[in-house]
Formats: sequence, C-alpha cells, structure tokens
Amino acid sequence: MFEQILVNVRENCPLVHNITNYVTVNDVANMVLACGGSPIMADDPKEVEDITSICNSLVINIGTLNERTIESMILAGKAANKLGRPVILDPVGAGASTLRTNTAYRLLHEVQFSVIRGNMSEIKTVHQGSGNTKGVDAAEEDVITENNLEGDIQFAKQVSKQTGAVVAITGAIDIVANAEEAFIIRNGHPMMAKITGSGCMLTSVIGAYCGANPSEILHSTVLAVSAFGYCGEQAYKNVEETNGGTSSFRTYLIDYMSMLDYPTLEGGMNIESK
Amino acid sequence: MFEQILVNVRENCPLVHNITNYVTVNDVANMVLACGGSPIMADDPKEVEDITSICNSLVINIGTLNERTIESMILAGKAANKLGRPVILDPVGAGASTLRTNTAYRLLHEVQFSVIRGNMSEIKTVHQGSGNTKGVDAAEEDVITENNLEGDIQFAKQVSKQTGAVVAITGAIDIVANAEEAFIIRNGHPMMAKITGSGCMLTSVIGAYCGANPSEILHSTVLAVSAFGYCGEQAYKNVEETNGGTSSFRTYLIDYMSMLDYPTLEGGMNIESK
Amino acid sequence: MFEQILVNVRENCPLVHNITNYVTVNDVANMVLACGGSPIMADDPKEVEDITSICNSLVINIGTLNERTIESMILAGKAANKLGRPVILDPVGAGASTLRTNTAYRLLHEVQFSVIRGNMSEIKTVHQGSGNTKGVDAAEEDVITENNLEGDIQFAKQVSKQTGAVVAITGAIDIVANAEEAFIIRNGHPMMAKITGSGCMLTSVIGAYCGANPSEILHSTVLAVSAFGYCGEQAYKNVEETNGGTSSFRTYLIDYMSMLDYPTLEGGMNIESK
Repeated sequence: MFEQILVNVRENCPLVHNITNYVTVNDVANMVLACGGSPIMADDPKEVEDITSICNSLVINIGTLNERTIESMILAGKAANKLGRPVILDPVGAGASTLRTNTAYRLLHEVQFSVIRGNMSEIKTVHQGSGNTKGVDAAEEDVITENNLEGDIQFAKQVSKQTGAVVAITGAIDIVANAEEAFIIRNGHPMMAKITGSGCMLTSVIGAYCGANPSEILHSTVLAVSAFGYCGEQAYKNVEETNGGTSSFRTYLIDYMSMLDYPTLEGGMNIESK
Repeated sequence: MFEQILVNVRENCPLVHNITNYVTVNDVANMVLACGGSPIMADDPKEVEDITSICNSLVINIGTLNERTIESMILAGKAANKLGRPVILDPVGAGASTLRTNTAYRLLHEVQFSVIRGNMSEIKTVHQGSGNTKGVDAAEEDVITENNLEGDIQFAKQVSKQTGAVVAITGAIDIVANAEEAFIIRNGHPMMAKITGSGCMLTSVIGAYCGANPSEILHSTVLAVSAFGYCGEQAYKNVEETNGGTSSFRTYLIDYMSMLDYPTLEGGMNIESK
Repeated sequence: MFEQILVNVRENCPLVHNITNYVTVNDVANMVLACGGSPIMADDPKEVEDITSICNSLVINIGTLNERTIESMILAGKAANKLGRPVILDPVGAGASTLRTNTAYRLLHEVQFSVIRGNMSEIKTVHQGSGNTKGVDAAEEDVITENNLEGDIQFAKQVSKQTGAVVAITGAIDIVANAEEAFIIRNGHPMMAKITGSGCMLTSVIGAYCGANPSEILHSTVLAVSAFGYCGEQAYKNVEETNGGTSSFRTYLIDYMSMLDYPTLEGGMNIESK
C-alpha cells in the first residue's frame, strides 16, 4: 500500500494549492516539486476558490496570516470541502498570539480538515488552548519522548476524534493517528529543527501525498512523515561528510526528496503501528 | 551585437524594479544580481512610481497578485511608459483563475509592454483566452515541439503584432519574436521545470538585459533566454557530477549566471534566426 | 566580554520578532537560527503586540513595507519599548522613495531604537535626508574608505547622539558607534554585496545578539557585525575552492554562522576601538 501511495504521487503529479506564509513558501514550493507534486500559491479572496477547484488538495498554513489571507483560507477551505478534496492544516504558532489561536479555532469550526499537522504545543492549543507554545517551536515540556509516548498517542487519537481529521504531531518522535489507529514514526534528525520551514515543507508534502491518494489519508500522511524524516537523515549524512552547516542541510533535504524512490525509502522507513 | 548587450549589463548594473510574487522573489533578486543587475522590490501603490522612476526597467509578475499589488502594477507600468523604460510582463498562471486572466488583460490594456514572457498556455490565454493552463505549468497539449514549431512561431509573431511587445514563449524549445522576426533558442534543461521560479528568474533577467539595452529589446530578450538556458545546462552537468538533486540545481543555476562571461556563453548558445 | 555575549546567544536561544520584507525573509530566518536564536515573523497589526511580548527583541526592516505593515511596525515598536526589549531598525532603501524616507522618520519619531543598521546612504537619509541612495545599495560617493574614515566615525557618533541608538554603518569597512565610543570592523568580503539579504541577515543577527544581551547593546552589535563578516570571509574561501558562484556563497555564509564558536571567531575577528 505504501508503495502504491508513492507511485501515485510520482505518476499523477498532484496540484497542491498552498495558502501559506511568506517565510518558507519558496522551500515549500520546491519541496512539493521535489516529492512529485506541482505547487500553486494563491491567497487573494478573489481567486482562491478558482485555484482550489483545479487542484487535488489544499494546504492552509497560518504562519504569517493577515486579515486578507484568513478570509482566503476560509473561502478556499469551504470550496475544497464542497469538492471533496483533502484539506490540510498547519496551525503554525497557534498559541503564540490570540489572532493565531482564534484563527485556528475558526478554521476548525468552518472547514473540515483531512489532516492537521503541528508540533505538540500547537496541537495542544488547537485541542484545548493549553499548549505552551514558545514562538513557533514546541515548548520543552511538550516534547514527545519515549516516556510519555503512550499518553501522547491517546491524546492524538482524542484530537482526531474531536476534529475528524488525521492528526500528525511531529517532533523527535512523530505520531500520526486517527480516532482508532496510530502510527509511530522514528525517522528524522535534530538538524531539521535548525532550519526554518521543516514543518511547513512536511505539511505540504502531506498535501501532495493526500492529493494523489484522497482515499488513503491516514497512510498517505504516515508515509509522507516517514519519507520526509528519512530525507532528513540522509541530508544529515551528507552534511557530515562535507562539513557543511544548516543551509547545506536544507539543500540536501530537498535534493533527497527529489531523488526518492520506494525501494530506497523502504530500506530506511521506521514506521510502527500502535 | 550580442556581446555588447552582455557587456552593457555587466558595466551599467541596471536597476530593475520588480513587482513580483513572494514565492520566488528571493531567487529573482539573487538572479538579477548574478546576471549583473541590481534588483529592487517594492509593491505599495504609494511608492511604486518613485521606485520605477529611479530604475532602468520594470518587471511585472502576477504570480501572487492581490488587489493592492494589482493597483501598484498599473501605476508603475504607466510611470515606466511615461519615462520610456522597458516594461516586462510575466503573466504567471494566466488562465488558472478569472482574477489572473482579467488582470493580464487589464495590464495589457493599460500598459504598453516591451516584452511578454510566459509558457505557451499563458501566452495563449493572454492572446485569446484559449490556453489550457494547468496551474502554473503549460498544459501538455500546449508544449512546443519540433512538429508544431512553425505554427508556434507564426503564433508568437501574431501575439507580438497584437500587443506591440516582443513575445518570449519558453518551454522545451524557446521562441522569441516580434511581429516580423523570430528566433528559436535551443538551450536549457528539463530540470529547470523541477524547481520553482525558473520562469520568474528568466523574466527578471530579461528585465536586466533590456534595462541595460533599451534600444535592443528583441536581441536582449533572445540573449537573456539563451544565457539562462545555457546556465541551466551547465548547472545540470554539476548536478550529475555531484549526484545532487533539484535544490543543488537551483544553487548551481544562479552560480553559473554569476560567473557567465561572453566568451563562455558564445561557445554554448544555440540561437537560430527564422 | 565578547565571549560571554556569544555564549549567551547560544545558551539562551533568544526569540527574535522580525517585521521584515518578503524578499530576504527566508534567509533572515535561517540566519537567526544559524546564529543561535529563534525567529518569529508576524506582521499583522492584530497580533504584533502579542508576538513582541513573548520575544527577546524586535527587528523592524522596511524592505517591502506597505500601509498594513507600517502600522504593525509602529505598534510592535511601542510594545517593545514599553517592555524594555531591544528594537533594531533596518531602514532598507530609505531615500529611494518618499514613502520609505517618511516611514523611517516616523519610526524614529515614535519608537526608541536600540540599534540602527544601514549602509551609508540609508543612514545619511535617516539623519538628514541627504543620502544618495541608489536603490537598495549605497551610492558610490557614500562608500566608507580609509580616506574618509575619521569623518564617517564622527558622523556615526552624531547620528547616535541624535537618535539615542547605537549606529552600525556597514560597507567595505564597518563602523559601530554610540555617542561617545566607536568601533571599526574590518571583516567581510565584497561578495556579500552580490547576494540579496546580506544587510537584512546582519540586522537580524544583531537582533539575536542584543536579545540575548540586552544590557550590552554596543558590544553585542560590534560582535554581530564582526561575526557576520568573518563568516563571509570563510564562505568566500569555500567558494574559491569549489569554483562556486554567488548562490553557493549564500549557502556557505549561513553554514559558517551555524558552526561558529568563540575560539574560531576570536582568531579571525578584526575589531578596532576608536
């Protein structure tokens, strides 16, 4: 099944409509291309419904939201819902300002999401306003570790039940869950937190995978998280060999995604069903 | 003549005012610097006329347009026209939404462009609303091939006659034409379509070349298209040697442009007069 | 003292709120991460006060200002002032348009800045409206050289006296001064002017350094300027060895910052007290 998901992305080149922040938008576009999709960025209320209607999926990222783009997120989200296209939410920095927290709530109220991806602080905020968001990174007390893993899995399932969306909580260990099932993914590398946009890029890769596999949202999300993490591991190896730093890491991360095929990924993916 | 065009860019360091999208703007700025120009990005209606007045050319790219920036495009375009400065249009995604298509029409109606550069779907839309735009890429039925080349050249000349602008239709084969003359450029590499911003970067390189050579719009555009494609070929060679991916390709593409001189380019440019 | 400043950045990971332009914002975010800080970008009037309140410093960069973001700059600046957090100004392109010049003046009138960083043309504009801004680069007649160095130092002190801010004028030679004291920094490489964002990145590194050392604004700024210049020198060495161009240079610049420690920097920093 995982193999077919990847093949579908490469063969169908899903169009992904991204309403996203201007900080990481270039990396997001290049990462969507690298994973096999085709990105479109459009955020004006007067065109987002048109753009969503020609796309296979919609990614809403609130990283640098403003009044105009919030309106567009709602319009595009509703249009995608009507058409039955997967809609992915990245609640960047939810909890860091009232505007972000309220926008995340409003989006969850007015749009049905297929997947929500964030760090633990963001997902806690989305769930109950209790996240300890430190800017755009998860607070230390919110980091997923082996010790609190079982509780965090239950929490992910609960958020999925509440929202009706597959929930991806990413960090040192990644959790992807719907209301009944959960997967633990142990791919990735700490250097991914040392570049901007790791989270945003992953969210849009999920958008591409789900866009090409709309009936396999859970497994598409699991595979996207694992593939992205695996590319991070490989990128780090390259950085070590070349004595590079974080900017080289970013380059290699996108490079590896652009070259990824299933046999390679199969040898490195670390996915556990819980 | 081509040599003089390149020398003029390097020696005069033309200032290029870009009203462009936030997806590829960083690559555009670095590419303008790499080719020998100096980029300025400004998109507020309250300052675009000031900025245009100190610049050698203006590039209008509708990649992530909105109400505020559309207004700025019109104002800046008219200001550049009054001053007799070259104005270049990149109708990104024209045909993908009514807003984009209508904005492209409005721009063509209110501003006299020196050059219009786009893929075949975008140029068809600009011409007659008949493009088969698939997001921001040309639709398959719109790809320029050896088989339909003669017809496409005639079409480019016709669009030039209609708009009064030099028309550059880029793809696997590139066509640059005015109403009477056409050039075919066979430089470039398919990997250019696997990064975001290839088209945007090229459009702004055309802006720099025309800004430094305002009386040689047709030949400046031809040379810019060829130089950009040649850098793509060289970048791909580097990617192959280093087993890199698409992000490395982007880095090398800008690298080569920053090091390009005429003797090197002369050995690789593939320009045919039709 | 310099050592402690660097250690404080690495250990405290200061949160830096950036209201900045969309051209270089990704490089700025990655550079803040590379130097040891954590960047947040937020520019909507409805959230900037919230965001500033959780941050250690605020950087205001007018590179692609508009009506909405100008309002946010004022609101965030006042909020940071109330909380006693360092506020850094980068008056990008001041002098190039009336809007930019007036916005710089308005900001200086309504917000108390800790540091102002710009090229000589921008700082002259800020001081007296007399800069010879050529787009976003300093005009030739404004370049700092050994011949006019003494006068330029006096000028920097005067601007500091007038504004109450530490003034950093960067170019081939860099000057950092308050009303009484000045430092000359001779680090850096001319290739830094061949990529977009060198100035913006430096300003936000200053933001990170001051955010982690709010009682050492002058010395933090001096060290940030030197560290950034040193990374530029090292990046250029890498470019030479690999026959790279300007885009590789950008990658290496961020790479070096991400790997910088004090013993390394100490061997290369060139700071002179005047």
